[in-house]
Amino acid sequence: MVAEIISIGDELLIGQTVNTNAAWIGEALNKIGIRVSRGITIADEHDEIIRALAESGASAQLVLLTGGLGPTKDDVTKRALCTYFNTELVMNQEVLERITEMFSFRNIPLLEGNKSQAELPASCTVIPNHRGTASGMWFEKNGVVYVSMPGVPFEMEHMMEKELLHRLEAHFKRPRILHRTILTTGVGESLLAEKIADWEESLRAENLSLAYLPAPGLVKLRISVYDVRDEEKVKAVIAEKEKQLNALIAEHIYGYEQDTLQSVIARMLTERQETVTVAESCTGGTIAQMLTSVAGASVYFPGSLVTYREEQKSALLGVEPTLIKKYGVVSGQVAEAMASGARQRMKTDWAIATTGVAGPAGGTEETPVGTVWIGIAGVFGVKSVCYQFGRRREFNILMAAQAALNELRKTLIAQHV
Amino acid sequence: MVAEIISIGDELLIGQTVNTNAAWIGEALNKIGIRVSRGITIADEHDEIIRALAESGASAQLVLLTGGLGPTKDDVTKRALCTYFNTELVMNQEVLERITEMFSFRNIPLLEGNKSQAELPASCTVIPNHRGTASGMWFEKNGVVYVSMPGVPFEMEHMMEKELLHRLEAHFKRPRILHRTILTTGVGESLLAEKIADWEESLRAENLSLAYLPAPGLVKLRISVYDVRDEEKVKAVIAEKEKQLNALIAEHIYGYEQDTLQSVIARMLTERQETVTVAESCTGGTIAQMLTSVAGASVYFPGSLVTYREEQKSALLGVEPTLIKKYGVVSGQVAEAMASGARQRMKTDWAIATTGVAGPAGGTEETPVGTVWIGIAGVFGVKSVCYQFGRRREFNILMAAQAALNELRKTLIAQHV
Repeated sequence: MVAEIISIGDELLIGQTVNTNAAWIGEALNKIGIRVSRGITIADEHDEIIRALAESGASAQLVLLTGGLGPTKDDVTKRALCTYFNTELVMNQEVLERITEMFSFRNIPLLEGNKSQAELPASCTVIPNHRGTASGMWFEKNGVVYVSMPGVPFEMEHMMEKELLHRLEAHFKRPRILHRTILTTGVGESLLAEKIADWEESLRAENLSLAYLPAPGLVKLRISVYDVRDEEKVKAVIAEKEKQLNALIAEHIYGYEQDTLQSVIARMLTERQETVTVAESCTGGTIAQMLTSVAGASVYFPGSLVTYREEQKSALLGVEPTLIKKYGVVSGQVAEAMASGARQRMKTDWAIATTGVAGPAGGTEETPVGTVWIGIAGVFGVKSVCYQFGRRREFNILMAAQAALNELRKTLIAQHV
Repeated sequence: MVAEIISIGDELLIGQTVNTNAAWIGEALNKIGIRVSRGITIADEHDEIIRALAESGASAQLVLLTGGLGPTKDDVTKRALCTYFNTELVMNQEVLERITEMFSFRNIPLLEGNKSQAELPASCTVIPNHRGTASGMWFEKNGVVYVSMPGVPFEMEHMMEKELLHRLEAHFKRPRILHRTILTTGVGESLLAEKIADWEESLRAENLSLAYLPAPGLVKLRISVYDVRDEEKVKAVIAEKEKQLNALIAEHIYGYEQDTLQSVIARMLTERQETVTVAESCTGGTIAQMLTSVAGASVYFPGSLVTYREEQKSALLGVEPTLIKKYGVVSGQVAEAMASGARQRMKTDWAIATTGVAGPAGGTEETPVGTVWIGIAGVFGVKSVCYQFGRRREFNILMAAQAALNELRKTLIAQHV
């Protein structure tokens, strides 16, 4: 079976808003075994909505709509739905009560525009919105299911996760599907595919399929089993295959499912009751920002230093000016001295340091734009490693920060006693 | 006239990639007076591409396609274009030479897959790709223009800016359009609209139109004049209106066109030969990351400190523990002490500090999640200001960082002698 997604909103067409909903929905449906065959973006216009509903309804078994339901919109979407499904708007008392409660709880006056959000097409099944005032609406026509949802990602995602996905699974009697996502870093997609070619081939015999999902600096590997009968058995097969994969590329696997490099490091440090600091030059605060994006980071992260200029590397971290002069500020020696200095001064168990040429200026023959040295200090001592990234500043900064976190992660594992 | 955008790629439908191209193209076309009426996302499938071409060609005068042209793709897009335009692939010697040169320059072997990218439909006009190997292709059929472009944003954007937009303007004889974008922060869309209601009304008499383009923490105001005859005269009218707007909301206007808070601050500090540092608690490195995202930041940014834990605020910035005990770590007093301490220790002209509760934990009755104090220190002395943001950690961190940069910007203006 296939689904189509209709995204409604002038703001999407004039480029004011990027349509992240369509990608999110595509991934969510994919996980329950529903393939999206087409996505359509249209304006908040009655006739456009009718045309899209008819076209999508003719080729898909499921049509999901987002947007066009806010209190300031002209109700275009709801009126178009009424026309298409030959029904009319009626005040839904239950929804009105919920909206009234929400406003009284927040001590905000209830305006007419808000009340009108409880006016819903008579023939629809209401899908509750726990995060906002625009309800979801489920319709059926000629065997096709249509669901209209709010366009605010925060509301739509919660509605799909809590209210819609299980209804879709039940309605379409989708076979049970299992996914396992393994997260890798530090290896490109092509090289990774080469390294695990035989293993990938061996998946087929077990009816497991594999998808490569690349993102900047990362490749996610997703194992999927469609039509699961004996869940325990399938889980055991996946576990066995995971073990084999780990034997092949252990150094590149940093986590599973929703993990990030920083969440994995957070977990390891919290468990070990250890702390980390950072001395950043070319990454300019990005590593600190990533580490503190995890809630509760103060447990293992007391703080860090951004030493952007040479003199600050000496003043704040105690890097000898003669060392900088001898080896250059972008060097393994300086990266190591920065890491050691930060670890001492911040009294942490671990320290990461970065020094590099983010670009666009500052490159030389020996250290071109994209050269980044990463230093790691711990009880074991100190070490450094050099990376060569690309030409774009933004890309180089992000890649350097990810590489530094990955070097820390690998060191944490190697130095575990 | 209207345009439709066809985005080709399985990765868009399964949610692996967010379709940023469609929004970018929508904005670019909008600026030259072409309205996008519909966007369609389809899989890399011959029949789907043909169906989309036919549908879009029936309702639009311009159809732009992106994606499906990479060296590892199965050439589905190019073959579908040949079918639809009744032509065939021929080796384009000029393009082949350019691709060969690119590879020899980079010292990479030229594979068959790369060579095949020079095979292009005989009837198309080639649009050069200066950033990659997949050429753009311009077709005309029944008065409709179709242009196929690569899907890599870095390549597509450059192709549109350098090669396509002026050809479209010439071909469709679009009337000359002028835009002026004024960037505001620190005021919500509704309140802003109220403040400038009379001014907005006065634009109409001059045939100027206004669009509100909100983004997290910012609202962009875009003045547009369609069908410009006397450019000098129109520019003078816009300048006059800008002056009037500035009298109304000067404190909220931080820049124009492509400016960012950090690029505006970079310009001011560079001109004044002044420097800034940051002492970050709840923003955890985000402000440093934003400041160093501007190339050449070392001129005005020597470095900064992330003092995430209380004891680091004392150890690194000299904030008295008694002060923290008396007023609480999230307080104006501590924000001011952090800013003063950072300014002294880093020997800069200016310092910004943040201390707040990003959430989800850590909130109290008096300082709930979302409370952020911002301190600013300079030759004038030191001051602090309190903001109350929302409940989501990620949002609070971003908003606090933007507010802190905006407070610095306003102080820089006020303290200019």
